[in-house]
Amino acid sequence: MNKNNFAKNPPMGWNSWDCYGAAVTEKELMQNIDYMAQHLKEHGWEYIVCDIQWYEPTADSSHYHKFADLCMDEYGRVIPASNRFPSAADGKGFKPIADYVHSKGLKFGIHIMRGIPRQAVAANTKVKGTNYTARDVAHPFSICCWNTDMYGLDATKPGAQEYYDSIIELYASWGVDFLKVDDICVKYGRPGDESTLAYGGDEIELLRRAIDKCGRPIVLSLSPGPAMVEQAEHLRKNANMWRITNDFWDSWDAIMEMFMRCKNWSPYVSEGCFPDCDMLPLGHISIIGCEHGVTERQTRLSREEQRTMMTLWCIFRSPLMLGCEMTDMDEWTRSLLTNDEVLALLRDSRNAHQVLRLGNLIVWQAHDEAQNQYVALFNVTDWQDDFAVDFAALELEGTYKLRNLWENKDLGEVSDKFVVSIKSHDAKLYKLTKA
Amino acid sequence: MNKNNFAKNPPMGWNSWDCYGAAVTEKELMQNIDYMAQHLKEHGWEYIVCDIQWYEPTADSSHYHKFADLCMDEYGRVIPASNRFPSAADGKGFKPIADYVHSKGLKFGIHIMRGIPRQAVAANTKVKGTNYTARDVAHPFSICCWNTDMYGLDATKPGAQEYYDSIIELYASWGVDFLKVDDICVKYGRPGDESTLAYGGDEIELLRRAIDKCGRPIVLSLSPGPAMVEQAEHLRKNANMWRITNDFWDSWDAIMEMFMRCKNWSPYVSEGCFPDCDMLPLGHISIIGCEHGVTERQTRLSREEQRTMMTLWCIFRSPLMLGCEMTDMDEWTRSLLTNDEVLALLRDSRNAHQVLRLGNLIVWQAHDEAQNQYVALFNVTDWQDDFAVDFAALELEGTYKLRNLWENKDLGEVSDKFVVSIKSHDAKLYKLTKA
Amino acid sequence: MNKNNFAKNPPMGWNSWDCYGAAVTEKELMQNIDYMAQHLKEHGWEYIVCDIQWYEPTADSSHYHKFADLCMDEYGRVIPASNRFPSAADGKGFKPIADYVHSKGLKFGIHIMRGIPRQAVAANTKVKGTNYTARDVAHPFSICCWNTDMYGLDATKPGAQEYYDSIIELYASWGVDFLKVDDICVKYGRPGDESTLAYGGDEIELLRRAIDKCGRPIVLSLSPGPAMVEQAEHLRKNANMWRITNDFWDSWDAIMEMFMRCKNWSPYVSEGCFPDCDMLPLGHISIIGCEHGVTERQTRLSREEQRTMMTLWCIFRSPLMLGCEMTDMDEWTRSLLTNDEVLALLRDSRNAHQVLRLGNLIVWQAHDEAQNQYVALFNVTDWQDDFAVDFAALELEGTYKLRNLWENKDLGEVSDKFVVSIKSHDAKLYKLTKA
Amino acid sequence: MNKNNFAKNPPMGWNSWDCYGAAVTEKELMQNIDYMAQHLKEHGWEYIVCDIQWYEPTADSSHYHKFADLCMDEYGRVIPASNRFPSAADGKGFKPIADYVHSKGLKFGIHIMRGIPRQAVAANTKVKGTNYTARDVAHPFSICCWNTDMYGLDATKPGAQEYYDSIIELYASWGVDFLKVDDICVKYGRPGDESTLAYGGDEIELLRRAIDKCGRPIVLSLSPGPAMVEQAEHLRKNANMWRITNDFWDSWDAIMEMFMRCKNWSPYVSEGCFPDCDMLPLGHISIIGCEHGVTERQTRLSREEQRTMMTLWCIFRSPLMLGCEMTDMDEWTRSLLTNDEVLALLRDSRNAHQVLRLGNLIVWQAHDEAQNQYVALFNVTDWQDDFAVDFAALELEGTYKLRNLWENKDLGEVSDKFVVSIKSHDAKLYKLTKA
Repeated sequence: MNKNNFAKNPPMGWNSWDCYGAAVTEKELMQNIDYMAQHLKEHGWEYIVCDIQWYEPTADSSHYHKFADLCMDEYGRVIPASNRFPSAADGKGFKPIADYVHSKGLKFGIHIMRGIPRQAVAANTKVKGTNYTARDVAHPFSICCWNTDMYGLDATKPGAQEYYDSIIELYASWGVDFLKVDDICVKYGRPGDESTLAYGGDEIELLRRAIDKCGRPIVLSLSPGPAMVEQAEHLRKNANMWRITNDFWDSWDAIMEMFMRCKNWSPYVSEGCFPDCDMLPLGHISIIGCEHGVTERQTRLSREEQRTMMTLWCIFRSPLMLGCEMTDMDEWTRSLLTNDEVLALLRDSRNAHQVLRLGNLIVWQAHDEAQNQYVALFNVTDWQDDFAVDFAALELEGTYKLRNLWENKDLGEVSDKFVVSIKSHDAKLYKLTKA
Repeated sequence: MNKNNFAKNPPMGWNSWDCYGAAVTEKELMQNIDYMAQHLKEHGWEYIVCDIQWYEPTADSSHYHKFADLCMDEYGRVIPASNRFPSAADGKGFKPIADYVHSKGLKFGIHIMRGIPRQAVAANTKVKGTNYTARDVAHPFSICCWNTDMYGLDATKPGAQEYYDSIIELYASWGVDFLKVDDICVKYGRPGDESTLAYGGDEIELLRRAIDKCGRPIVLSLSPGPAMVEQAEHLRKNANMWRITNDFWDSWDAIMEMFMRCKNWSPYVSEGCFPDCDMLPLGHISIIGCEHGVTERQTRLSREEQRTMMTLWCIFRSPLMLGCEMTDMDEWTRSLLTNDEVLALLRDSRNAHQVLRLGNLIVWQAHDEAQNQYVALFNVTDWQDDFAVDFAALELEGTYKLRNLWENKDLGEVSDKFVVSIKSHDAKLYKLTKA
Repeated sequence: MNKNNFAKNPPMGWNSWDCYGAAVTEKELMQNIDYMAQHLKEHGWEYIVCDIQWYEPTADSSHYHKFADLCMDEYGRVIPASNRFPSAADGKGFKPIADYVHSKGLKFGIHIMRGIPRQAVAANTKVKGTNYTARDVAHPFSICCWNTDMYGLDATKPGAQEYYDSIIELYASWGVDFLKVDDICVKYGRPGDESTLAYGGDEIELLRRAIDKCGRPIVLSLSPGPAMVEQAEHLRKNANMWRITNDFWDSWDAIMEMFMRCKNWSPYVSEGCFPDCDMLPLGHISIIGCEHGVTERQTRLSREEQRTMMTLWCIFRSPLMLGCEMTDMDEWTRSLLTNDEVLALLRDSRNAHQVLRLGNLIVWQAHDEAQNQYVALFNVTDWQDDFAVDFAALELEGTYKLRNLWENKDLGEVSDKFVVSIKSHDAKLYKLTKA
Repeated sequence: MNKNNFAKNPPMGWNSWDCYGAAVTEKELMQNIDYMAQHLKEHGWEYIVCDIQWYEPTADSSHYHKFADLCMDEYGRVIPASNRFPSAADGKGFKPIADYVHSKGLKFGIHIMRGIPRQAVAANTKVKGTNYTARDVAHPFSICCWNTDMYGLDATKPGAQEYYDSIIELYASWGVDFLKVDDICVKYGRPGDESTLAYGGDEIELLRRAIDKCGRPIVLSLSPGPAMVEQAEHLRKNANMWRITNDFWDSWDAIMEMFMRCKNWSPYVSEGCFPDCDMLPLGHISIIGCEHGVTERQTRLSREEQRTMMTLWCIFRSPLMLGCEMTDMDEWTRSLLTNDEVLALLRDSRNAHQVLRLGNLIVWQAHDEAQNQYVALFNVTDWQDDFAVDFAALELEGTYKLRNLWENKDLGEVSDKFVVSIKSHDAKLYKLTKA
């Protein structure tokens, strides 16, 4: 199996974190599964991902309880808390939910922390199918700095590969299609302090091998970011997507930062290899979350900023993971998520790159196999402004038919240059076809 | 109680680490207690210190077993492993050994790691006399990077002071006179990497208060080093001695480094406040240790280097903690440890400081209340050499009676300058009395 | 002549420094020549190198006499002190000894300091075959910081090339096969202080040209180290071997440091171009030396550490220069030096590189033209431990026949991974042949 | 003898360097002695200083001959080259010239390099009155980086003090009153590179003791600069004057830099202790010099700049050492050097300091024992400008009688503030007396 075939295009889906933190339940998963199947699936959305701590019975927000007692099997493998996921009772795990997802033509994902539970080490559980125990494989000094559930594994120890094999085997048996592994893409020395990053390459390799053995094409997604560009080739070899940013939320500053990150990572996008700009904080979010001191709300991004975000994520070909509760989505938000001409860039465009950044204008460019050109223009000033872009700067020449993709409208022919007026924080996205 | 009265002069004693690592037993303690009482006590040696992991039943070298099961009481307090310390059985703790030490006119010390056992957190034990539990007071992200026994305490949490109170109360009930606390003077981010040091000031303050309450004058010794000079006043206020070096072993390079460290710390030596150069690796050491890949041996320091070490430690007024098995000590080693004229500097000298370092000659100077001068000269070249030191450089003038302290011999009168020949790596130590 | 043909494989030999410092005599050279011819030559050992100050009649240890009077000819060229090398009397220089070496089928090397004697400058000797004098070519401010014999040459001055030509001509006339030039690979500003290094590239080029003209394939070896990686291409162009470390002695710390140095230099090893890990301090060494304050001894490296050193030097393809007195070599030491399967790596292996360093396990890998793989595993912890290495990490797949090279023993077939137990500080060296 | 009595006020004199480099002769000394006695002595000028290399027979400019043969006595002490100083023949040294200087009521100074001649080391001369030799006391690695004459002394070696004693004894016997010692105040690692400075404190102490013993009050002047402010107290204890700048020449940039240096050093000026701004490059200079690529000339400083220099040097109380050939001095230059009201600051003022630097105006202030105030204002713009300075900024209040010292003119009374117009690069110097 070639992992690049598991996700040829950037995965599109929904993730429970932005709404429900560590506390999502089966009920909320089910209602969002239904919504996606009915309203978004036809536009390419297909993953439903249950985020962190589904094995923690007392989880009730996005803040973790330290030293919590986790639900765990005899081999030190976490299993869903049945008070939150009733269908998981009697050792059925996530299989019933995954089956339901599949029945709707969708795919199912889960989140895990790298490593083995601290309580497995305390209990010194067996590694399934071996004579090794949790204490043999746990690395006593490799702990996450923001969550107390796990010890990392010592990849040099016999039994470490087998432990990861045992959990992937379990997830495959449930029918998991997508695995988001956390505290691994980078490991923070101090929470949020980017000067303290280390790379979790050794455990990433263990996971890669475990998935390759398991017989199921499970997409491997790595968190948190920012991933290190110097690890780009190792990431491309071992994972399907990896976060290029710390958690992304609904602020303009965070979008501005993403322009820089996307620029740095654009050479590394290819089939099965997707640098990840993180979830889309659109619509109704943070329903029981408390991150950064803000709680339940409609996204704080303006409509222009939302369009800018969607334009950048699509031309860059980032995975798209919705953060909102979908069932009460408004028309505007849905329109952003169902514009097929825009979403087509995820599938069809290639070689996206920032072509210029002049003063307050940023321009990205890509093309498709038919040699259509895609040009996105971003006004990052705080006022509406007019901009001219010479075709030469885009290595174009001659006359093109121009189409506004957000508006699904042909604009006639243009030669030599664009002259456009763009609202503050807004974006234009054009398709150019040789006339 | 004023902690500076607990140890007016630098403590002198024996510590089990250099010989027995984490694995010392009652038998070895007893034989060394007897030896000290019989041969060294009259020269000022008085402490017997049982080093790390006396609560770890399987300890067998200086290498720790990760995730070892520790002997612990119902309040999460470690207690001696009775397979190693039979007299501690039936909850008697170290009281029988401490009583024996006291019967010999000596004092008894133990080593602890800062914090609370990881297994107390797993078992969620009560903090004695409170409604708090181990999980309330443990800091989940504050772990030692070289030993897996403990979590540090979160000094901001209710119950943290009470936990330290509860362990000090226990040690006081045993009759402990000296407490060496580890992973606290500095906390390494990576083992041995001095670029990663943090200071354990918050837990040091908890310990200071616990000792002040306990009613027993327990000397507080902090490890490991190198302590940070910028914390000098905080250390002087809260502790009796603190390590100014990482573990010191028998190598000339380490002695050379100590010259620099002693120079930096000399302004901070005073009654009850002693920067600590670490144990004396003399004689027969490392009997069951394996540090740095070398095992049982006679000290690798030449006789000249041994004299240099003793001279520096004494004029600087470092605590002196013997590292060797004492019962098979040879005559030469004993002569170094029983020269009363040299040891008198620990008690009588003041204001020691490096007065010059020229090329390969280092000179230290101190004086006593009677205005006798003490001058130590160190030849740090790799060959015997001649040196001249003008009295003016020592702010001396006129004629002095000169006494060689290592040889206990008067050398007649000198004026204006010293001219001395010193062997490679050797030291001269003189007392000068105004003629 | 192409200097890369002078030494197609890493030179193997013996050097007098580790035993005899600056004071070796003809007698000691002769006995070691005889030993090598009889016992080691068949295993590839061939160079006998007479180290520093063979022109200093009073040299008596590894400590230099400052301003010593040197034996020198009328052209300011140093010549052997005939009180130490009687056969050199009457202007015969090293020719009689070199002839004897050659008669045994071995090769002869000498050590020089870069530059021209200070006493040639005082006497203002002629540069042979020119009208220039020592004062014309000496650089008055270019002195070595650890030996007083020489001034460096000012490579911009007429006569400088001619002076180097004149000494190389002399050495060629004696039959010298190997020239170790000191104070040139790096020049220390302060002894041993690596923050003060400068590169001696200008004088290296003078020497290169002088050798190329002399008609004899003299191997050029540069000291001391650590050479600067940014000079790698200049070194490869001009020298045959260059030291990548300051003087290496028998300590584990120094071996640990070498792992890092070899990793950095491994891309630059090729035919005729050998980064040099320095002498092998095995067996009976430092017979009249006093470096670092330790004197005559058997190597302080444990047997495991000795095997680790030999394994690293051989897979890295460092030159091998023995440091011990050979005539009283014990069986163990000889076994390390005569294991033909291990030594074969010097000749046959290619592309050695550190393939992973995970926690306390270091793995090196190389291959030969027949696509046999060589894998060395090093346990750098202070205790015996078990390790697993997946074949994927070595970019291997399938089944291999495994041979333990140190034990010259076939171990059967392996697939997928190694699982090995390695003693503290020890190494395993395997040859893998596709099954 | 208290060295602070040797020069209670800043020395004033003439030095041969700026005109004659290393090549001054007896003839030029004599003509300048006569001029000073006749024209300047009454204004306080009194020292005639013969600068570097009076012992080098072939010296012919300000550029040194490397490895030159020096005139030297049997004890390795340099003596005047009699081809340049005929009166020194037959071992009379500088006594005849010094006697002549004294007969004119003036004082005589000489320059030396620290250390002992390299050629004394080559010849291994005796240290006078001892059994030590040049090789015993020379430090083989302590050489000057811009002149090849000397090795520094190893102050730790027996005989080092005695060598300095022997040269000072010689100079005292000649009647030397002033000794400028070079390569000692700071020692450059690379010529002119201020990032490479080391302090020559050990040899400074040897010289201090030698002078104190010699029975003659020889003023000790140290070069080159910039001296290190952190050595201020050591310099004050051991020397009379020390250079706070590298060689100062006739450029405005150098004057601008001196404002900063004088500001830093002003707290350290006191009786017998004078930070030194270096020679005054006025009038006809560089007659046979070639420094910085410029040769014989009238000073390149404008008249305004000359006045600024004299004003700063006088209020700061720098020593004043004339650099010009005096015998062809023009009227303007002489007027600058004979204004007794300005020169009185050297003797009478105290506590000078930069009181403000606002934009392009710099103000210095001092006072005398009679509480007269001295205020100097400097316009460092490139145009004439008007400035107002409030008395409050000078901690003055009330009404003062104002006198222009350069013009020797009363200006009436002022209150509250100055308002002055100053030409570009010019200075005003006022004396204020309480009305």
